[in-house]
Amino acid sequence: MDKDIRELSPKELRLLIRSGEYNKPTAGLGMGYAQANVYILPLRYAFDFFLFAQRNPKPCPVLDVLEPGIYETNFLAPDSDIRSDVPKYNVFCKGKLTDKREDIKEIWQDDFVTFFLGCSFTFEEALLRSQIPVRHIEEGKNVPMYITNIRCRDGGIFNGPLIVTMRPIPAEKIVKAVQITARYPSVHGSPVHIGSPQEIGIKDLSKPDFGDAVEIKSEETPVYWACGVTPQEAVLNARPDICITHSPGHMFISDKLNEEFATS
Amino acid sequence: MDKDIRELSPKELRLLIRSGEYNKPTAGLGMGYAQANVYILPLRYAFDFFLFAQRNPKPCPVLDVLEPGIYETNFLAPDSDIRSDVPKYNVFCKGKLTDKREDIKEIWQDDFVTFFLGCSFTFEEALLRSQIPVRHIEEGKNVPMYITNIRCRDGGIFNGPLIVTMRPIPAEKIVKAVQITARYPSVHGSPVHIGSPQEIGIKDLSKPDFGDAVEIKSEETPVYWACGVTPQEAVLNARPDICITHSPGHMFISDKLNEEFATS
Repeated sequence: MDKDIRELSPKELRLLIRSGEYNKPTAGLGMGYAQANVYILPLRYAFDFFLFAQRNPKPCPVLDVLEPGIYETNFLAPDSDIRSDVPKYNVFCKGKLTDKREDIKEIWQDDFVTFFLGCSFTFEEALLRSQIPVRHIEEGKNVPMYITNIRCRDGGIFNGPLIVTMRPIPAEKIVKAVQITARYPSVHGSPVHIGSPQEIGIKDLSKPDFGDAVEIKSEETPVYWACGVTPQEAVLNARPDICITHSPGHMFISDKLNEEFATS
Repeated sequence: MDKDIRELSPKELRLLIRSGEYNKPTAGLGMGYAQANVYILPLRYAFDFFLFAQRNPKPCPVLDVLEPGIYETNFLAPDSDIRSDVPKYNVFCKGKLTDKREDIKEIWQDDFVTFFLGCSFTFEEALLRSQIPVRHIEEGKNVPMYITNIRCRDGGIFNGPLIVTMRPIPAEKIVKAVQITARYPSVHGSPVHIGSPQEIGIKDLSKPDFGDAVEIKSEETPVYWACGVTPQEAVLNARPDICITHSPGHMFISDKLNEEFATS
């Protein structure tokens, strides 16, 4: 099964997830196809969340937004159903994680607005293709994430710090890593910082706020990219009555090729 | 005066416009600084308009959006006032042009949401810098604009055709023109079409739907870019109770350098 599943198309994967037969992380699945972070909120919060995303495009690159009550994204994946096609959902009520589900059909509301945001799986594939190491993949870990002292631009009720992922890059490959990721503004784009963690308020790289610490070799420099967890912190701060997200790592798999989101 | 005004900073220009002393088109003013299309709508339409813009980034590149009732864009121009800093406004009621004003303070509403969209003045400056001719500027005319048979993606109540501008480009400079404008996704970006007008539903290049016809020389090919008039057509179709826009050519002059919107 684990071998077969890597051969499945995005549509086949979504059907498997929809049926309840697959509820695990989606890293490594549907290679070549873009995966998305998912945020679902009642319409009364949607304009503010849209503002927050528009003003912070690096951590919150908007791939698609659906009209209230609509659960199919024609743009990213015709015939998909956002109520069932994510392997695992987190439900936040007033800024607290109150429920984890594999399906949200029972709690779906007609005023729910769905946001799809880009995910760094896309550019990691491009880095690997150029033989730039991605340490947490090598080590079989989750990417290390850190809360910075950089403040996002507020958007209505949504506000919070910029959260970054860190990947140690050999000195001679940093320029290439910048160039490659800059091609993908829809999935966090170029780095937000290179080098000193202190400069952006990170005290200790060995103690990430989320995810796992990874080894940094002597010839490597830590490079930081905006992280899709940023809007989640903003949701915790804004405390909307309800917000449903994908569970970290359990993404929505779209029919769009990663390359369709490259700038050139 | 006409000589002096070209030396003014964006802030000085906005103050002059605010005072009522300048109410003419803004082309050629504040060279190097980005100018913006302006759309102002009550909050009840703002989410739909945001959707339309997000789904059609080439004709509707969002530079900033303000919270309801807010009339200062901290991002594009601190101390600006969108109620007075545009030389001329058009007021549309239920899809009809009902009023033209030089100031909208008297009709401002607390639920008004302001959208700033990128304007092609930015990339025209870049084309000229690379010695690529911009015919309508040479001829002292308004850029020719055409309604195409390409349909925008609908966004809530907003819908309509893609409208394009056309610039004739010498054959050997087309690639360069594509490369240059591709650097500015925030101001319409790369062309949407090169060559045959029939292919995108334009019957006669000598009869533009808006603006003025320009000469196309024998060694030139017509090149088409998405146009900021596209959302205006969508507003006419959607017929919101009220929508206020800049009058064509009478733009908002920001403090942001054009180069701040370039991708690389």
